[in-house]
Amino acid sequence: MLKGKMLIGQSGGPTMVINQSLVGAIIAARQQDTITGILGAHHGLAGIMNEDFIDLTTQSTEQLELVANTPAAALGSVRLKPGKVECEKVFEVFKKHDVRYFFYIGGNDSAETAHIIAEMAKEANYDFCTVHIPKTIDNDLKVTDHCPGFASAAKFVALAFMGDDRDNAALSGVKINVVMGRDAGFLTAASALARQTEGQGPHLIYVPERTFDIAQFQKDVKTVMAKYGRCLVAVSEGITDSEGQPVMTSGERDSHGNLQLSGTGALGDFLSSKVKEAYGDQVVRVRADTFGYLQRSFPSVVSAIDAKEARMVGTFGVEQAVLHAEPGSVAIRRLSNSPYASECFMTPLASVAREATALKLDYINKEGNDVTQAWLDYVRPLVGELPVIGML
Amino acid sequence: MLKGKMLIGQSGGPTMVINQSLVGAIIAARQQDTITGILGAHHGLAGIMNEDFIDLTTQSTEQLELVANTPAAALGSVRLKPGKVECEKVFEVFKKHDVRYFFYIGGNDSAETAHIIAEMAKEANYDFCTVHIPKTIDNDLKVTDHCPGFASAAKFVALAFMGDDRDNAALSGVKINVVMGRDAGFLTAASALARQTEGQGPHLIYVPERTFDIAQFQKDVKTVMAKYGRCLVAVSEGITDSEGQPVMTSGERDSHGNLQLSGTGALGDFLSSKVKEAYGDQVVRVRADTFGYLQRSFPSVVSAIDAKEARMVGTFGVEQAVLHAEPGSVAIRRLSNSPYASECFMTPLASVAREATALKLDYINKEGNDVTQAWLDYVRPLVGELPVIGML
Repeated sequence: MLKGKMLIGQSGGPTMVINQSLVGAIIAARQQDTITGILGAHHGLAGIMNEDFIDLTTQSTEQLELVANTPAAALGSVRLKPGKVECEKVFEVFKKHDVRYFFYIGGNDSAETAHIIAEMAKEANYDFCTVHIPKTIDNDLKVTDHCPGFASAAKFVALAFMGDDRDNAALSGVKINVVMGRDAGFLTAASALARQTEGQGPHLIYVPERTFDIAQFQKDVKTVMAKYGRCLVAVSEGITDSEGQPVMTSGERDSHGNLQLSGTGALGDFLSSKVKEAYGDQVVRVRADTFGYLQRSFPSVVSAIDAKEARMVGTFGVEQAVLHAEPGSVAIRRLSNSPYASECFMTPLASVAREATALKLDYINKEGNDVTQAWLDYVRPLVGELPVIGML
Repeated sequence: MLKGKMLIGQSGGPTMVINQSLVGAIIAARQQDTITGILGAHHGLAGIMNEDFIDLTTQSTEQLELVANTPAAALGSVRLKPGKVECEKVFEVFKKHDVRYFFYIGGNDSAETAHIIAEMAKEANYDFCTVHIPKTIDNDLKVTDHCPGFASAAKFVALAFMGDDRDNAALSGVKINVVMGRDAGFLTAASALARQTEGQGPHLIYVPERTFDIAQFQKDVKTVMAKYGRCLVAVSEGITDSEGQPVMTSGERDSHGNLQLSGTGALGDFLSSKVKEAYGDQVVRVRADTFGYLQRSFPSVVSAIDAKEARMVGTFGVEQAVLHAEPGSVAIRRLSNSPYASECFMTPLASVAREATALKLDYINKEGNDVTQAWLDYVRPLVGELPVIGML
């Protein structure tokens, strides 16, 4: 049995429930004799390299529960892809502090980081166990049925569209809402949960899995406008043209090579201008909102199942690491939809590292401007109950 | 006593609780013998002119309660300033349908519409009573202590900043959030409720009541960055330069002459570029979000006091109209802060029509980049309890 300290860090974009995973891991670790101390790294890998740690053995359960219910990443996060030099530095620190367990909570980029470190530990013959704990609002990790963090963000998007559909019905026109999701349309597709009766929006849904054609978009909007006198559009920030180029970006990239798509209103404004252009001299009210960071860290908008599962993957990751001392990534298997039930299992780090997944093709309609019933059946149990919309 | 039908309409921007006022008015009217029928106008004045009505006497209480808890405007809204021709058409319709009570739920523009119609009724010797029922997330109506709709939008803004502050702490940098509020900074100022301990943001708050100076803004951001290593900024969409011109608009105007500020990300992106410019070659992570329409119609984010008062102004308006047959606008008087208590009273239409109010000067700090304790004392009871942020 591996005996020594454990180190835990958070990485990538924050979510509503990533702190549930952190707290789940801390509480599980406190019950393990083989874990002699719990260190939290501030801002993930950056904190490890600078030995910027916080001792996580002393916090009260009450305080930890407050943290678990607070969005974002209580330890601080980072977007950093380690090279050889960084990995060597990380090992030096691990050895110095007798770290034998390393838990990294994040998406596929973070899984890659965990994988690189696990491989280096093997090479260095350092007796050590790395576990990746999944989190991403993008829901784009491979192997797992779904990712902690997604369902709460999906709930935010569904609620936002539900209210905005009523807003658009009250003051008619074209409304475009830009939803997060670089390469995968899961979150944008969740907007469909807002519909409760025929005619309610979103009326059009565009995801990055399909090529975005501006002329077709203009045509689609006009068709919906002719039918309902209004049009609510959900569009992913990551939509690309026929050459695979993002329709709009700020040009900025992070260290994983990802383009900055969020934190700017450019895509929404661009699409607005294209709708106005399609109508020429005819005056049509066109507005665009970019939901931005609110989607991933809005207090009080949480899926109960998401919160529970986020806690569960943290707990399970620690228990498995102690039991088997094997590197791996925690994944979720869905057991039943009614009543909803799921369980955790371990999958090799290599199976989730770097490469991401996307919306299954049968979740998108033929025209590429809406989702299918199969998608709704997949996502509804995860998000849980939504308010009932009243109409006169 | 005035006997005849009542007509009710909703006008201007939707809110989370405008349907509470509608339902309050309907339920109160059903108990009045002098009200012989209840008509709802689709899209306010536009629906009246087209005789596009819905009969509001037959809905079940259960259905009305669902409507009351649904955001936006169940009857549909409109932004239309009536001229002489429109008013004559409206009167023709009123006479044709024996409408003796007219309730218009809206902001100061809607109060102006109600006022114009009331004046014309007097001139025409048409025995008739018009009551304006207040609603605006902008909180900028005169006379009243505060406006139904504001506190729920303020709660959304406070929650959004609370989460986004944690997000900004997790992945540091400069984050700018653009908040609704054309001429008044009430909603932007409500962002200050997000702060629970020293160092939490928003660190800077800019409202339209003070001139926005770009050089000073750049300096302010650098000062905060030097102190905390991050900076969260709340800025009103309506900030103006030293010549009183909006810092950024789409150039579009509504029929009341108001410029379009919402439904575009232009101001946020412009301010981001100004921060980047201030840092020159130094790479600083800068992001901007424009909260947009989510602020006024997000299901489940409601202030309990706001919902209660919105219901109350609807009920009170109908009761007073039947009792006194006098035109007027419903206002709210605050009686106590702990426990919070308020009551309704009537004020002349002319006292709230057209002109709006703004943040009191002692609610803004000397530097013009933050709010004061007096503001927090005013706004906190209206918004009610907020989640407690947990930190390690």
